[in-house]
This record gives sequence, structure tokens and C-alpha cells, in this order.
Amino acid sequence: MTAEHTAEWVERAIAQAEPGSAHPSRELQVLERIERARRRKPKVREELITLAHGAGGKATRTLVEAVFLEAFRNPVLESLDDGAALDVNGSRMVFTTDSFVVSPLFFPGGDIGDLAVNGTVNDLAVCGARPLYLSAAFILEEGFPVADLRRITDSMAAAAARAGVHVVTGDTKVVQRGKGDGCYVTTAGVGVLDRKITLGPSTVRPGDAVIVSGPIGEHGITIMIARGELDIAADVTSDTASIHDLVATLLDTAPVRMLRDATRGGVATVLNEIAEAAQLAIMVDEPAIPIRPVVNGACELLGLDPLYVACEGRFVAVVDGAHAEAAVDALRRHPLGEAAAIVGTVEADPAGLVLLKTVFGGTRIVDVLVGDPLPRIC
Amino acid sequence: MTAEHTAEWVERAIAQAEPGSAHPSRELQVLERIERARRRKPKVREELITLAHGAGGKATRTLVEAVFLEAFRNPVLESLDDGAALDVNGSRMVFTTDSFVVSPLFFPGGDIGDLAVNGTVNDLAVCGARPLYLSAAFILEEGFPVADLRRITDSMAAAAARAGVHVVTGDTKVVQRGKGDGCYVTTAGVGVLDRKITLGPSTVRPGDAVIVSGPIGEHGITIMIARGELDIAADVTSDTASIHDLVATLLDTAPVRMLRDATRGGVATVLNEIAEAAQLAIMVDEPAIPIRPVVNGACELLGLDPLYVACEGRFVAVVDGAHAEAAVDALRRHPLGEAAAIVGTVEADPAGLVLLKTVFGGTRIVDVLVGDPLPRIC
Repeated sequence: MTAEHTAEWVERAIAQAEPGSAHPSRELQVLERIERARRRKPKVREELITLAHGAGGKATRTLVEAVFLEAFRNPVLESLDDGAALDVNGSRMVFTTDSFVVSPLFFPGGDIGDLAVNGTVNDLAVCGARPLYLSAAFILEEGFPVADLRRITDSMAAAAARAGVHVVTGDTKVVQRGKGDGCYVTTAGVGVLDRKITLGPSTVRPGDAVIVSGPIGEHGITIMIARGELDIAADVTSDTASIHDLVATLLDTAPVRMLRDATRGGVATVLNEIAEAAQLAIMVDEPAIPIRPVVNGACELLGLDPLYVACEGRFVAVVDGAHAEAAVDALRRHPLGEAAAIVGTVEADPAGLVLLKTVFGGTRIVDVLVGDPLPRIC
Repeated sequence: MTAEHTAEWVERAIAQAEPGSAHPSRELQVLERIERARRRKPKVREELITLAHGAGGKATRTLVEAVFLEAFRNPVLESLDDGAALDVNGSRMVFTTDSFVVSPLFFPGGDIGDLAVNGTVNDLAVCGARPLYLSAAFILEEGFPVADLRRITDSMAAAAARAGVHVVTGDTKVVQRGKGDGCYVTTAGVGVLDRKITLGPSTVRPGDAVIVSGPIGEHGITIMIARGELDIAADVTSDTASIHDLVATLLDTAPVRMLRDATRGGVATVLNEIAEAAQLAIMVDEPAIPIRPVVNGACELLGLDPLYVACEGRFVAVVDGAHAEAAVDALRRHPLGEAAAIVGTVEADPAGLVLLKTVFGGTRIVDVLVGDPLPRIC
């Protein structure tokens, strides 16, 4: 629902309320609160960009809303989806982009190359599109080994072949030593919307189920360990993968309300975005969250909550509750979805919040990510 | 013409040649030479990336062919056009991308923001497409002033509005201090091919005219001076502008064979790309080249050849010779084309070369750019 729709809804609700009523209905109060929040212009308090602005959490969100949305305001961008759904000469397509600045460039399970291909393919997939074409723009630092560049492009080509997409256009820029970090890659992607479905927060309903497609946090922990700054070793590899085929399996099986890939900010950030946009609550069942013991252990050592650690080959889906079991069964038969699980449900209240029922029987609020525990993980 | 087509052509020509002939026809010799060159795999001799690899000249071309084409090989990419012409659900569209790393970020006549919008709009335009949508991905350096980012996004928004395009999707990453240079922007663009025309080197014919749409070298010289490293001042501003409307004017007026915007490597590099791809000669008339005295003077002081200095709002067009005068007349009535001029003609020989008839009556070869006289001009 766009801000405009909400405004109309509020006005209608106000018109329908009893005149002179001292106690407007609770629903009305909630709506007014939403509308006030929407009218309140977000402000970037910092004068200088910090690493948190790139972490995908609260600071990123504020920067995007206060700077980018303010400047480029248009209905497609305002949906703040993983990609933009467009109409080109009568064809419905999706267009998306991501820059990749991961450090190190090479890590167990992948490198910046396949990450850049998979990340853009996945952004198209979670918008319900069939990925078709990618662009690839490179910002290279003077002195970067050509052999490393070749390794990256080979890995991109392999990832593109696996995903069935073609890299059709590109660009190369070189910056002086000390003005980059070896290699940054920006991919953009174009896909088509073959399916006649509407995905988005306005379709989410109480009673819907929340599914996570596989074990969480593996990419983020892999990168942390690969940096070699920590005195821990763990047998964990990045989950980087193109999930468009797994997404197609889900869309073939169940009525899907909304999809997001859980990258920067992890599953917790995605859940918060969904709860806030839908103005519904998400109750998460902690023991149900798929997570490998090695990732759990590493998170404990590092003092990290795995819910905030990035994945690069997992999605969060909200599906019709009545079809959730069948959906998970279907996902589990796919090599990338073997550990898929229903991790929570959508409820009416408290609107906009994500609550976690912990292993110990308690309940706590899962807030959006503040700060940046893991800079440059993608 | 693709390498495969040429191979067929050569084989046919060989089959038709008189058996046992000791003197194969000149045409056949030329074709064999082209084919040998095409079969010869380009090699990057350097082990490390240099600034020249990003300059848009010989080193960039070798890197693109030896690394990117090798990895991503597909017919669309192999055309090495400014954008990729694609078929999406029956719609003909063009998809393109460029990273912008210009230094300084702000300069007389523009900044990295409008440069990034105009650059991608122009890449779509010279492919014959009507620009529609842009993506914008930012790589920000920790400590970059938010106010500067706002200046850049405002400038992008204004450029997008002027060009009639929308920024519909984006991304933000932040890198640590010393791993970037304030702000890098990567834009990708999508446009539609409304016109039923074929542009490209295979359509270029001897007798065609070469048009330049306006005074050359202004962007590059502006950036050089804005860096403040030189002890010269000159009243010159960047020519950064969206040229899609000027391109439309040209396409409405004359049969156009091929279009390129003259950015990195300048007009000389574009002419060489056309001559080489078409395997025809381009004879350039030096006195006809539109260039402001201030740019000429600055180039003389700096020891630069203005033919290699980047423009950001000029195109080079090859048009049917019989319609060239009318085309230039039409361009000159457009505010961005007031100094448009016919600067040369296409001839059959010497195939693949650009020759300049100098002011002094001599003739010299205009080769492709080697090295990088102007790093990070876009």
C-alpha cells in the first residue's frame, strides 16, 4: 500500500467515525499513527557517511529515504523493492542493480564474481521475474592482478551459465592505487514477469506463514573468518547461489504474498521490512530457524546474533498459511532448499513488530539492525 | 559482420578463386588478413592493471577482448556496442551500463551525478533507443559528506528530468576510508527501440559522411583544469548533456549508418573503432573539426591532441553522404548541435585506418589511443 492509499484510507475511516467521538476506534488510531510516521520526513542526522550507512539496516534505510527517495521520487522507486517492476512496450519486466564491494574478494564457497551474478539474479527472482540479462561494470584499482580479474570473470561466467542468464553489456574503469580495493563489481539485471501474480506487503494477511529457504548466516560468517582477523577456524562456506529456480518451485506450489532475499542485515532485517510495510506482526519461533551448529557456534564466539548475519542464497517468503506445509515439502526436494522451514506466522498485532519466541520460552522484540557488525560482506 | 560470417565469406571466396592461382585477388588477401586478425586471440601482456586499461583506448580494448569477451562470450556482447540490443517478450530494447569515477566529483558545467545520468542516456541514444529507466548504484567512502551526496543526487534527478527518464532502482555500499574516493556511481539504463533501423559497422559504405555533433574536447579539458594540478585557467565548461533528443533529430532527417558518443579516448578512438569494425577508411578533414579556440589553446599548452580528449555530450555519426548536408542543417537548429559539422568521409581504402588531412595539407594516420593522458575523466 502506498502512502497515498493509506492517506485515502485514513480519511475514509475518519469520515466514517462517529462525529464528536472522544474515543476514535483503535484501528483509526493505528492508521493515524502510520500516516503520521509516513508524513514524517526521515532525516540523516550524521554529516558524514559511516559504514553503517552501507550495512542494510536502520542507517541505510534512513539514507535511502532521506536522500535517494527525496531526489528521485517516483512510484516505482518508492516501493523500495529488491527490483523495479516496469512496463516496457507492453512487456512486464523487472530491473535491478547492486554494487559488490566484498572483502576479501575470494572466500570459501565463492568470490565477488559469482556473488555479483547471484545477487542480481536473486533480486530479480524475489520480484517474481525470470532473470534474463545482466550488465557488469568493474571499478579496478591500479595494480590489481589481471589473473585475479580473470578468476572473477570466469566465476561470473560460470554463475551466469548456472542461472541461465547472459552478461550482455559492461564497462571498465581504473582508479589509482589507494582509491579502491582491488575490484568492485556492479551488476544490473533485467528479467520478465511471466506469472500473473502480485507480490508485496499489501497482500500479506494474518494467518500467513513465514518460510526461510535454508540455513541462515553462512555467507556472513564465512566472510568474517576469511578476513583472518579472528582467531577462529570453522568449516563453513558461503551459501552464495542463484535461487531463481527454488523461487519458481515455491511459486508453482503455493500462493506467495511476498519474497525477499536475506542479504545485508540478515533475516531479522527482512522480517522487519515486511512487518513494517504490511503493518502486521511477525511471530518467529526461534527453534524452527534453520541454522547450522558451526554458524551458531561462530556467532556465539563473535557475539553476533545469527538473525542479522547475511545469507547470499536464502530467501524469506510469506505464503498462505494453508499451503505452507506443502510449500516447504516442495522446497525440501530442491537441492538448495533441503533445510527450508516454516519459522513463523503473521499476526495482526502488534502491527509493525517482529517478535521472537525464544528457545527458553520467552518473547523478545527483534529490532532492525543498527550499526554495522560486518562491513563489506557483499 | 560476425567472425563466423567472415569465415564463411573467406571460404566461399577461396572456393571461387581460380585453382592454383599464385595471385589471389586483392579482396581475398584483405579478407584473409581480417580473418587472421580475428582468429588471433588478443592477449593482455601486463600482469597488473594499469590506468591505461581504463582509458578507453588500445589497452581497454585488449582487456575487454581478452578477459571479458573470453569469459562472457555471446553474440550480443561481441558486438561491443555502447549498449546491448535485446529481445524481451517480443519488445526490442537496449540495456547498457557505465561506472563513473570522475575526479574531481564537481567541476564547471556538471558533476559525477549528471555525468552518470547523461552518460547512460547517451549510450542508449546512440544505439537508437528511446531512454526510459535508469538504475543508480553508489559506492561511498566512509567520511564522505552527506551534503555532497545530496548535491550529486539532486543533480542526477535534474538530469533525469531533462532527459525524461526515471531512476527506478538503486543500491548503496560503503567502503572504509582509503578504499574509495568519496563517491563512485554506476548507472545502468533500459530503453526501447521504437525505430525500425539497423545501426552498426556493417551498414557503413564508402561515400558516407562522418558528422561530429558539436565542439570536441570540452569535458576532458574542463576536468584537467578542475584538478588544479596545472597552472592554467581557461573559460571552459564540461559539455555533459543528454543527447537523445539531438540523436532523434538526426534519425528523423537522414539515413544513419552508425552512432557513437565520443567519451573516453575522444573522437579519434570512436573513428578508429568504426573504421576497424567496418574495414573501411575514414578521411578526416582537420579544419572541419568543430573545436573552441580555448580548448585548442589548452590542448597545445598541455601537449594533448584534442581528437583524443573526451566529450560527454557529443556524438560521431556516419550518415548517407547524400543526406549529410541536410542532417547537419537539422542538427544546427538544435541547441546541442549548433556547431555540428561534416568532418570527413568514408572511403574504401586503406581499410581499417583513420587518416587526417591536416591544416597544412599533409595526411597522417590517426591511431587508437595508447596510454592514458587523462585518467578518471568520467
